[in-house]
Amino acid sequence: MTESSRPNWARRVQAATHSLSDRQLDALVVSNPLNVRYLSGFRGSTAWLVLAQTGARILTDGRYAAVVRRGVDVDGDLAQMGLDVVESTYDRTLADVLSRACAKRVGFEASSLTVAGLRRWQDLMPSIDWQPTDDLVEKLRLIKDDVELAALRRAGRMLDQVARSLGSIVAAGRMERDIARTIDAALERVGFERPAFETIVASGPNSAYPHARPTDRRLAAGDLVVLDFGGVLDGYCVDLTRMAAVGHIESAARSLFEAVSGAQRAALGAVRAGATSADVDRAARSWLEGQGLGPAFCHGTGHGLGLDVHEAPRISRAESGHVTTLAPGMVFTIEPGAYLEGTGGVRLEDDVLVTTDGCEVLTTCPRDLVVVSPL
Amino acid sequence: MTESSRPNWARRVQAATHSLSDRQLDALVVSNPLNVRYLSGFRGSTAWLVLAQTGARILTDGRYAAVVRRGVDVDGDLAQMGLDVVESTYDRTLADVLSRACAKRVGFEASSLTVAGLRRWQDLMPSIDWQPTDDLVEKLRLIKDDVELAALRRAGRMLDQVARSLGSIVAAGRMERDIARTIDAALERVGFERPAFETIVASGPNSAYPHARPTDRRLAAGDLVVLDFGGVLDGYCVDLTRMAAVGHIESAARSLFEAVSGAQRAALGAVRAGATSADVDRAARSWLEGQGLGPAFCHGTGHGLGLDVHEAPRISRAESGHVTTLAPGMVFTIEPGAYLEGTGGVRLEDDVLVTTDGCEVLTTCPRDLVVVSPL
Repeated sequence: MTESSRPNWARRVQAATHSLSDRQLDALVVSNPLNVRYLSGFRGSTAWLVLAQTGARILTDGRYAAVVRRGVDVDGDLAQMGLDVVESTYDRTLADVLSRACAKRVGFEASSLTVAGLRRWQDLMPSIDWQPTDDLVEKLRLIKDDVELAALRRAGRMLDQVARSLGSIVAAGRMERDIARTIDAALERVGFERPAFETIVASGPNSAYPHARPTDRRLAAGDLVVLDFGGVLDGYCVDLTRMAAVGHIESAARSLFEAVSGAQRAALGAVRAGATSADVDRAARSWLEGQGLGPAFCHGTGHGLGLDVHEAPRISRAESGHVTTLAPGMVFTIEPGAYLEGTGGVRLEDDVLVTTDGCEVLTTCPRDLVVVSPL
Repeated sequence: MTESSRPNWARRVQAATHSLSDRQLDALVVSNPLNVRYLSGFRGSTAWLVLAQTGARILTDGRYAAVVRRGVDVDGDLAQMGLDVVESTYDRTLADVLSRACAKRVGFEASSLTVAGLRRWQDLMPSIDWQPTDDLVEKLRLIKDDVELAALRRAGRMLDQVARSLGSIVAAGRMERDIARTIDAALERVGFERPAFETIVASGPNSAYPHARPTDRRLAAGDLVVLDFGGVLDGYCVDLTRMAAVGHIESAARSLFEAVSGAQRAALGAVRAGATSADVDRAARSWLEGQGLGPAFCHGTGHGLGLDVHEAPRISRAESGHVTTLAPGMVFTIEPGAYLEGTGGVRLEDDVLVTTDGCEVLTTCPRDLVVVSPL
C-alpha cells in the first residue's frame, strides 16, 4: 500500500468520536468487525475499539497483540491506538478500559451486539448506563472517501477484465460448478484477494432461482446462464452479473433479457444525488411491471458495496422501510432481475458511484448477452 | 447426497421443539443461519424458522421461495416445512406467523439476535412476551449425529490428503501467498466446497504471529513455516495445521517444535468423555509451562468444529468462563502453539471426535516437521 493510498485513520476515528457528544456519550464500544477495520485497519478475527473524547483504544487478544503493538498489520498499515491485551476475557478487559476512562454513559452498536452480549456487559458492569446507537460508524462508511473510491474503481476495472473473458469460460457441455471455479481462478488471477461471495452460475431451469448454487448440470443448447460473481480488493467488494446464452434461445427468453436490460437502464438513469433509493428501485420495477413482469422481479434493485458485500444503502421498495436519500460517494449495485419457471431467469448487475448529477458506473464491460456456440 | 446420508430433519426439529415445553414457550424463532441450516437444510442467505408444538414453518423471501416450495434445495435435500413467503419484510411476516400460531410467550436466540433486532420485534409485536434462550439449537449441534460424523470423517481424510502433499507445495523461494493459493487449489481438487477460512502460510519471522495472513515474503533457508488450512464438505468444517522447515533450522526452533509436539500429545491424551474442556487445555498448557513456554502460548487449545469453523466447545482455560464436560460425539481441534519473536512460531493442529474412553483423531497424517530443500 503506498503512502497516498493509506486511509486517514485519524480522520475516521475523529468523525466517529465527534458523534459521541451529540448523544452525550462518554464512550462508544465498537464491536462490529468491519467497523473495527474501517476505523483502525485491524484485519484479524477479533478486536474491539473503545472511542472516547480522551482517545481511542484497541482491545485484542494474544494472537494479535504483537501485530498491534508494532503498529503495523502484515500489510503494513494500522491506526496507532492505545492497546489493551485481553488476558482472560474480552468482557473483563472492556470493563477495565471503561473503568479507567471513568465512562458512565456508554454507547454500543445495537445492530451488531447480540442480546446475550449486552446482558453479559450489563451483569459485569452494572454501574454503566448502556445506550444503543444505530449504525453510527455505518453512516460514515456509507459515503466512501478517496482511498475507498480508489480501491472500488480499481476493483471495478478488474472485475470488468474477468467479465470480458466470459465468452471463453462459458461453453456448452461444461458443468456449472467448473465454470464457477474457472471464474474464481480468474478473479484471483486479475488480483482479487478472494471472491466476494460464492460465485453463481445458474443455467437453463436453474437460472429461474435468483440465488441458485452451481451444480453438476452441464450447459446445453438453448440455455440462459446467469453469471454472478465478485471480488475483494484491499477489503473492498465489487459485484457483477452478466448473462450468457448457449446458441439460439427461445423468443420468450430473449424478451426476458430485453426487459431486464431496459429495467437496468431505467434504474441507472434514476441514480443521482438527491433521489432516493426507493426512486431507483421504482424505476426498475415500473419498467418490469410495464412488461407484465412485476411478480417475476422478486428481490430488491441493489445493495451498497464497501467492506461488506451487502451494506447500506439498500435499493429497494419504499415498503421495505429502508429509504435512503442518495448522496455523492455512495456506492451500490443496480441489479434488477426477472425469473420465470419454464423460461428461466435473467439478471444484470453493475456497480455505481453516486455523483452530484448522476452516477459513475464502476463496471463498464458490455452488458450484451454473451452468446456461445451450442456445440 | 444418498438417502442414507440424508439428515433426519424431523428428529432434529423434534429435539429442538421438545425443549420449548421445559421453558413454557409457545414458539421459538430461529434466526441464526447455521441453526436454520441444521434444522432444515436451507442453505441460502436468509430464512427464519418458527418452531411450535403445532409444527415448524420456514420464512424466506422470493429469491428462495421456489426452492423451498419444491421441498428441495439444489442439492436435493431440504426438510419439509410450512412455507411463508416474505412479501414486505421478514419482521412483518414473522408477526403474521406468530399471530396465526396464537403464540404469546416466544423464545429468541439471544446469542444471535441483535439488540436492534429485538427492539424491532418488540415494537412490532408488543403483545408478545419475548424470552431469551441460550444456545438451544447450538446444544444439539454440539453432539454430532451419524450423518454429521460421516461428513467430518470423510472431510478429515480429505484434509490428510492435502497435508500429505505439503512437501511438494512448500519450497524455498516461493511466496507465502502462492503457497496459500496452491493449498486452496488442492483443497478444491480433493473435493472440498471451499476453504474453511483464509489459509495461513506464515514463514520465518511471520510465523511468530499466530494469525498472520500470507504475504509476498519468499521462503528462505532456516525458516519455520506454519501451514494452517481447512475445508468445507457438505457444510462441515475441518481444520489442520502442520509445520515445515526450509533446510536446517536453529536448535531453538527445533526445541520449540518438540515442545509443541509434546503439548499436543498431552492434550490429545487428555481427551475423553467425562473430562472437561479445561482439563484438555491444562494438559497442553502445563506441558508448555514446564518448558518455560507458558507466555508463548497465547491462545486456547482448540475449538469445536461443525457447520461453523469455530463453534462449541471451546477448549480453553477455566478462567475463560467456558467449561464444557466432554461427551461422545463432540468434535473439536487440538492446536497448541508457541510463538517467540526472534525464533518464530510453531502450531500443530488435529481434529478429534470424543469417544467413551478417549478420542478418534479425524486427521491422521504424520505430524512430523516437513523439511524441504533450502535450494
